Amino acid sequence: MPPESLTPERILEATEEVLRRYGPAKATVVDVARALGVSHGSVYRHFRTKTALREAVTARWLDRTSQQLSGIVTEQGPAAERLDRWLTALFEAKRHKAGDDPELFATYMALIGESGGVVDRHVTDLESQLTRIIEDGVDEGTFQTPSPAVTARAVFDATGRFHDPCYAAEWSRPEITADFEAVRDLVLRGLRPAPTGRADRT
Amino acid sequence: MPPESLTPERILEATEEVLRRYGPAKATVVDVARALGVSHGSVYRHFRTKTALREAVTARWLDRTSQQLSGIVTEQGPAAERLDRWLTALFEAKRHKAGDDPELFATYMALIGESGGVVDRHVTDLESQLTRIIEDGVDEGTFQTPSPAVTARAVFDATGRFHDPCYAAEWSRPEITADFEAVRDLVLRGLRPAPTGRADRT
Repeated sequence: MPPESLTPERILEATEEVLRRYGPAKATVVDVARALGVSHGSVYRHFRTKTALREAVTARWLDRTSQQLSGIVTEQGPAAERLDRWLTALFEAKRHKAGDDPELFATYMALIGESGGVVDRHVTDLESQLTRIIEDGVDEGTFQTPSPAVTARAVFDATGRFHDPCYAAEWSRPEITADFEAVRDLVLRGLRPAPTGRADRT
Repeated sequence: MPPESLTPERILEATEEVLRRYGPAKATVVDVARALGVSHGSVYRHFRTKTALREAVTARWLDRTSQQLSGIVTEQGPAAERLDRWLTALFEAKRHKAGDDPELFATYMALIGESGGVVDRHVTDLESQLTRIIEDGVDEGTFQTPSPAVTARAVFDATGRFHDPCYAAEWSRPEITADFEAVRDLVLRGLRPAPTGRADRT
């Protein structure tokens, strides 16, 4: 392969494929280099350590979800509807990741166990998206909260059953959709302004 | 030991102690009988199988929490305050179980993994308690929901981060109390009646 075509993205693609084939315990940088037809030195030129490579491929996998969701943040329309769509899309994305390719999902769960920092950044990213939607709702007067960031974290935590991988086994149960809708409705109601008569929206 | 003093409760106490000492993988009914100074036949007279004994000791451990909480359900006072106390007490109880005796907690986590049915009954029990508090709030006019049982389940799910053992590792983090309060506030706000004053919200 000509050196200029060995991009980080190509290395990460190959890494995912190697992880899928050999599993996270056995996959090595040499396997990745071999899959790309390059020396392992060429891979190390882009990712200095095996850990850096594994973290980058995990971040890429998690970023696919945040990128899908980021479009909803900047859409037009009432904040409550966008929040609903965002939570639904997050659940759908996670459910698909877990259900469509369970082996790759298990692989990434193992990688995530190795590196808390990558997940923390992912959660911070998702909570920032939620914060922006909630701020829009406060500006519209349809949401009320003294701190959109604190409330965003609460919304994220309250919906954990529908995005946290520790619940992945439950996402294929038939009643999970009704459970999700009940939590989503509770959360959306919790964002409404307090009913304090008519002076409640300024 | 005179046979009449061999009560189910004494057997379960001894079982817990044996599980703590040998771990769930190694503990046997013979160990329990030996700890009580009785034959294993005497133990089997009360619990027909090793599985039945392990399920009973797990149920007893879980029931300690539900019994602590049941007092709050029947207390006097506004439903919102009781719901707050109930959620706080559940979090406290779980946090103590996980933090005060991590080895016993890990033992019960292993037992729970063996027997989903015991946990399902525990969750049903807790959700029934929540349903009663929410029904009281609907009667008072401070909560609004078409289905207290569905909402009870949503409240339970939404607060999972603060009672589901899969989060036990996070319960010792300093920020967890603020996280809990933010979710609790969101949930309590979500139970308030819809503002029906002005025609601007339909």
